[in-house]
Amino acid sequence: MKLYTFSRSSASFRVRIALNLKGLSCESVPIHLTRGGGEQHSAAFRSVNPQALVPVLEDAGHMLYQSLAIIEYLEETHPAPALLPAAPADRARVRALALSIACEIHPLNNLRVLGYLTKTLNVDDDQKKAWYRHWVEQGLAQMEEQLSADQATGRFCHGDAPTLADCCLVPQIFNAKRFDCNLTHVPTVMRIFDACMAVDAFETASPEHHPEPA
Amino acid sequence: MKLYTFSRSSASFRVRIALNLKGLSCESVPIHLTRGGGEQHSAAFRSVNPQALVPVLEDAGHMLYQSLAIIEYLEETHPAPALLPAAPADRARVRALALSIACEIHPLNNLRVLGYLTKTLNVDDDQKKAWYRHWVEQGLAQMEEQLSADQATGRFCHGDAPTLADCCLVPQIFNAKRFDCNLTHVPTVMRIFDACMAVDAFETASPEHHPEPA
Repeated sequence: MKLYTFSRSSASFRVRIALNLKGLSCESVPIHLTRGGGEQHSAAFRSVNPQALVPVLEDAGHMLYQSLAIIEYLEETHPAPALLPAAPADRARVRALALSIACEIHPLNNLRVLGYLTKTLNVDDDQKKAWYRHWVEQGLAQMEEQLSADQATGRFCHGDAPTLADCCLVPQIFNAKRFDCNLTHVPTVMRIFDACMAVDAFETASPEHHPEPA
Repeated sequence: MKLYTFSRSSASFRVRIALNLKGLSCESVPIHLTRGGGEQHSAAFRSVNPQALVPVLEDAGHMLYQSLAIIEYLEETHPAPALLPAAPADRARVRALALSIACEIHPLNNLRVLGYLTKTLNVDDDQKKAWYRHWVEQGLAQMEEQLSADQATGRFCHGDAPTLADCCLVPQIFNAKRFDCNLTHVPTVMRIFDACMAVDAFETASPEHHPEPA
């Protein structure tokens, strides 16, 4: 397997965590998203993924896109340890938590959106940061409400073993910290983040362990 | 089963299509997203979903959130007809196409984001429409590239039977048309849209068949 990845891409970070949790080794192909206008826009990479997005997982001749689809693929091809619980309603809960990050928070704050705000809408730096924090803080507040009110929440987002939801939560908190978001209003989220970061699979997937070559 | 839904919510529309394709009947609870400041913000609805988002599916005492998680749940609890193919790499392809809409296009254009643009960033109406069209047209152009270049594309997004990807594609095209987006550059996407709309399950799930009570 080969993973096209960028250290600070939180979607790539999700897949690195899932690979680690499942004990799978994988060759890394670094795609630097900010160097030289972004290596994801190169003809070479666009032949890998016309969406010009990382991560891409290459496995057995298949090119797989979209971090959540990749993790579901890993779950189906390497079921143990499971990143989704067994019962359909529990699986739905874990997927919904993951999608709450992947569809409600993260898409508003990626590079191309921030670029449109500053270049096309002429938003200034303070407004850009306020936009970023608004969606992160509001989205995490809603997750806090869902996590803290539900007995299914355990040491991790769902019970006492890491799931797909935790694979999404941790990279989102890394982004939140990088943009100095307020995190004091989400104690359950942060307790789970700390529990995850105490697990090697999460810690060694983090950006500082995956620097791009100089 | 009970579906909390809004006619024009494209995430609700996705689930209505999936229910129809599987031949499942379901009570509808209309939540009007624009009337009186938005019924999704009422205390009553926030006790159903603290994220204040539709759709929500209530089934066997479970409250299920996030359209893609709901459709995966329906797939697991009512497997036939299948909305995902059998092989893991094919399932990943279908999920990636669905996520390309659910994570890359739709989140940028929902009500709360457009509200932030106009109310907080003081973006004018033309700029708001340009924002909307930018993400739809760019996102669909990338889907066009993926669909037209891949032999796995058939009458529908994946082969000759509707899948989760088509459940996401059709509502996105309805939104695109409502905002007068250019669709001439995505002939494969539009061919698949037309093929879907010729199927009763798609047509009868559309907003005009699900008006809110006056």
